[in-house]
Amino acid sequence: IPLARTVRCTCITIDDRPLKPRALGKLEIIPASLSCPHVEIIATMKKSDEKRCLNPESEAIKNLLKAVSQKRSKRAP
Amino acid sequence: IPLARTVRCTCITIDDRPLKPRALGKLEIIPASLSCPHVEIIATMKKSDEKRCLNPESEAIKNLLKAVSQKRSKRAP
Repeated sequence: IPLARTVRCTCITIDDRPLKPRALGKLEIIPASLSCPHVEIIATMKKSDEKRCLNPESEAIKNLLKAVSQKRSKRAP
Repeated sequence: IPLARTVRCTCITIDDRPLKPRALGKLEIIPASLSCPHVEIIATMKKSDEKRCLNPESEAIKNLLKAVSQKRSKRAP
């Protein structure tokens, strides 16, 4: 008999408001695991340090991820 | 005359060792900003809590990002 597992996801609510890449200070991705059965994506805002849980299924977030990880220095060509 | 800026990147060295998605506890993406001119990707290992700076230009890391953000629950179909 498998032991009962306590689900401990970090995100309680998902914030679906659009998010400007420029306002983003940090993006954390927590893969699905035994403690939480789904991927969690947490954005930390640059100025306010506010944290928001994003919807990993959303196209906007997928594009944000792509944009953020591809962005090179535009100031030093 | 623009003020001199102090570069404060989080990563000092890049770890190019391959990384198993299963061993990954968390992935942090820090977009390029005034304080650091390039994207930084920091992986936190699940068991050891060890942090590693990954190479954002590496194909392996791009695939890891894709894998991690697309992974749904496989245990609860």
